[in-house]
Amino acid sequence: MNASFEMLIGRMQELKDLGGLIGLATWDQQTYLPKKAGTARAEQLSTLQGLYHERLVDPRLGEWLEAVTPADADGKSMIRVLKLERDRAVKLPARLVKELATAQAHGLSAWLAAREANDFAPFKPALETLLQLRREQADAWGHDGERYDALLETYEPGMRVARLSPVLKALTQKLVPVVQTILERPVPDSAVAGKRFDGNAQWDFTLQLLKAMGFDLAAGRQDKSVHPFSGGTHPLDVRLTTRVNETTPMPAIFGTIHEGGHGLYEQGFAESHYRTPLACAPSMGLHESQSRLWENMVGRSRGYWRYFYPLLQVKFPAELKDASADAFYATVNTVSRSLIRVESDELTYNLHIVLRYELELELVRGNLSVADLPHAWNEKTFELLGLRPSHPVEGVLQDIHWSGGDIGYFPTYALGNLYAASLWKTAREQLPGLEADIARGQLLGLRDWLREKVHRQGFRYFAEDLVKHVTGRGLTDEDFMAHVKAKYGELYGVSL
Amino acid sequence: MNASFEMLIGRMQELKDLGGLIGLATWDQQTYLPKKAGTARAEQLSTLQGLYHERLVDPRLGEWLEAVTPADADGKSMIRVLKLERDRAVKLPARLVKELATAQAHGLSAWLAAREANDFAPFKPALETLLQLRREQADAWGHDGERYDALLETYEPGMRVARLSPVLKALTQKLVPVVQTILERPVPDSAVAGKRFDGNAQWDFTLQLLKAMGFDLAAGRQDKSVHPFSGGTHPLDVRLTTRVNETTPMPAIFGTIHEGGHGLYEQGFAESHYRTPLACAPSMGLHESQSRLWENMVGRSRGYWRYFYPLLQVKFPAELKDASADAFYATVNTVSRSLIRVESDELTYNLHIVLRYELELELVRGNLSVADLPHAWNEKTFELLGLRPSHPVEGVLQDIHWSGGDIGYFPTYALGNLYAASLWKTAREQLPGLEADIARGQLLGLRDWLREKVHRQGFRYFAEDLVKHVTGRGLTDEDFMAHVKAKYGELYGVSL
Repeated sequence: MNASFEMLIGRMQELKDLGGLIGLATWDQQTYLPKKAGTARAEQLSTLQGLYHERLVDPRLGEWLEAVTPADADGKSMIRVLKLERDRAVKLPARLVKELATAQAHGLSAWLAAREANDFAPFKPALETLLQLRREQADAWGHDGERYDALLETYEPGMRVARLSPVLKALTQKLVPVVQTILERPVPDSAVAGKRFDGNAQWDFTLQLLKAMGFDLAAGRQDKSVHPFSGGTHPLDVRLTTRVNETTPMPAIFGTIHEGGHGLYEQGFAESHYRTPLACAPSMGLHESQSRLWENMVGRSRGYWRYFYPLLQVKFPAELKDASADAFYATVNTVSRSLIRVESDELTYNLHIVLRYELELELVRGNLSVADLPHAWNEKTFELLGLRPSHPVEGVLQDIHWSGGDIGYFPTYALGNLYAASLWKTAREQLPGLEADIARGQLLGLRDWLREKVHRQGFRYFAEDLVKHVTGRGLTDEDFMAHVKAKYGELYGVSL
Repeated sequence: MNASFEMLIGRMQELKDLGGLIGLATWDQQTYLPKKAGTARAEQLSTLQGLYHERLVDPRLGEWLEAVTPADADGKSMIRVLKLERDRAVKLPARLVKELATAQAHGLSAWLAAREANDFAPFKPALETLLQLRREQADAWGHDGERYDALLETYEPGMRVARLSPVLKALTQKLVPVVQTILERPVPDSAVAGKRFDGNAQWDFTLQLLKAMGFDLAAGRQDKSVHPFSGGTHPLDVRLTTRVNETTPMPAIFGTIHEGGHGLYEQGFAESHYRTPLACAPSMGLHESQSRLWENMVGRSRGYWRYFYPLLQVKFPAELKDASADAFYATVNTVSRSLIRVESDELTYNLHIVLRYELELELVRGNLSVADLPHAWNEKTFELLGLRPSHPVEGVLQDIHWSGGDIGYFPTYALGNLYAASLWKTAREQLPGLEADIARGQLLGLRDWLREKVHRQGFRYFAEDLVKHVTGRGLTDEDFMAHVKAKYGELYGVSL
């Protein structure tokens, strides 16, 4: 081991520690920060992010990355991953970084104002500026003519429009008629409507669910926040949040299972990867595959509720005395037409994503203007979901993402759903009796399988390569379609 | 304003932000950090402290500090304070900083092992190393022949042994006979012994106390920790902790009032000082004066409990039905011989401090060896308190401070008590009806007086200069002695 390698490892650890501290300050901001400290925290975060950036673009780091040739594969991967991040940071002119930060702050307040007024107009100029800056950013990063690829790379390294678009197109073509068929069937009665579910009892139940998944509460915690998220500072300090709504237990339950899936990923990194660039998921889509696998494939399965529903009834004996486990299972899998992405079900969710992906792709390509976006949003919503938003808050203004210029982010949700289905299929093949185990509340076999196959790999491979390695298939809509056809066909009594 | 001044202000803000983030990571470490993340957090903190140090000793900062001549007094004070901190950091060789960090880590584990074994021996070599390094550090910082001055400067800038020792000597000579007289009187019955005090009710009551003091819970918060402390990230984000013991409400109540006093100081800095070196108390002694003033002068006064005791009875109607407000007042002011500093009362507390101060001063001077320390401790305890420890855990091993090499820290507690008494006397002179207000639960007048006289001054002046400016007197034992003589004479029915 030479001096450069030691310096390089030291810098990797420093960057990871700073990233962890950014995680802490962000977590705190959304959980315990006193109301008046918002600006102070923004300043602290900006200082910390500035230092992170400075250490990352430091020319000496560039020299060390060139000088070092590690003997083992993990060392090589660390260098590859850090180079990927550094090269992109170095390519951005300081002027653009600054303009983007300003435009993001302005975008958020303009979006909030537009929502307040229920009018797209106040948001339009802010989005135009953000879009223009993102296009400049894409050009600074470089691409093969498809600017969107450079933006997508931020969230989904290695993925390209040329690979993604055909898969999402095929998925959409298959999904639309399936949704149509299901929506013609009668909607099952809700097992939870009109009741009150004590917040403390809900909270205790979500902790039971986390423990059953094998989330280590000595190496992580759960708190409450307005919008559930997962984060933390280190694989031994993973922080989840959920929200509790006393009129229905669903947000707490599925928020916890979803974030718990993310949390298991973060807790599952190999110890030898701690404080290195490898203790990181290779993409947001693969991260989302873990939350969606737990939330939908496990947490919305009949077997899961066979075991957990009686435990939920213990918490809510009066509220749930008239509803069976099967009725609860039907309730958590109700398919409905919704205009709102975050309220949509497993089946229609991907259509909401396709809507956003296709629109933002055309925005970046310059084939769609921001002025025409609200109309295009409404038209495409009708085409995909058979509904028309009656006002912008339930349409084009519903998501926060674009207000921060997050373009290229949405498709990672769909990638998560597709990867989850493929991993789930392979897990069932490789773990005989998995579904029977789940129906007995035994979830650790699945956690350990995911840990070995996915989590411990860290960022050794790009997401699709890792999935291919595990499942034998790359990105495909087939496993997802097979999953939903089997599940919803059975549940709704139709052949799909 | 020239370029250097802008750079300087930017660096001041950066340093303050990093300090705030260190505050966040430390607060979290003692409140919410998952059990397994201890090492990870220590690494993160070490990285952050390293960056803070790097930015502080940066030669460019030295140049800016020389180049800039601000027009206004606050600008000049900022430069003076930052220079003070930077000069000391620059003077330390990197080798010494590193050796100290190692010795501190080792000191803590040796101290824990010694306590575990109830034997001073395992701690002895670690303390010798720490003492040696602190002497080297004092020499690196520079002094006029009294090494202890250089160490004291860390906690109490501007204070010197030549000033401090005579005051503490006079205080001791007056205090010992007063304590002796009181201890000959019968001990009042406890108003709380043998009861159980529900933790949630205690918690709610402490929040009532904080609100009554004028602690702004929208610019701060209270949580639980094993050892109460105050900290936070910014004057608008001040974090207190308290602890709840269900066998007695005293630790929660007085922990809250004490930390609340610190918290008011932190919330009281002038807005124009935010993110500058002036948003800082000039010494730990002055900081402690605020916690002690609230804890002892206000929180252990008869008037305070005239108002708050009925509110406490509302929380604990059964537990407190037989005890009067006067009985409760007597209980919270019980004087007793104790070997343990943290359990000692307002009257004997300073004697515990004098014990430690005199011993550590002789250690630093080389007049006392670490080998002789346990014997010297026991002798001096007998001399000052009339008791002899029967084993080291209730003697020389009781405090954590020396295990981290914190030498020069203890006297700040006594300084806090003395400054508190002088400020309290002046407040009563300048705020007619103050004690009547307190007896009606009206505490905001006192908070505002302290805010104007002390908190908003930040680090414009050294502690004793500020106290002199407010009270007309510098450091003195007289106001403290007058306070305890009047209070305990009345309470114990003796002439002191």
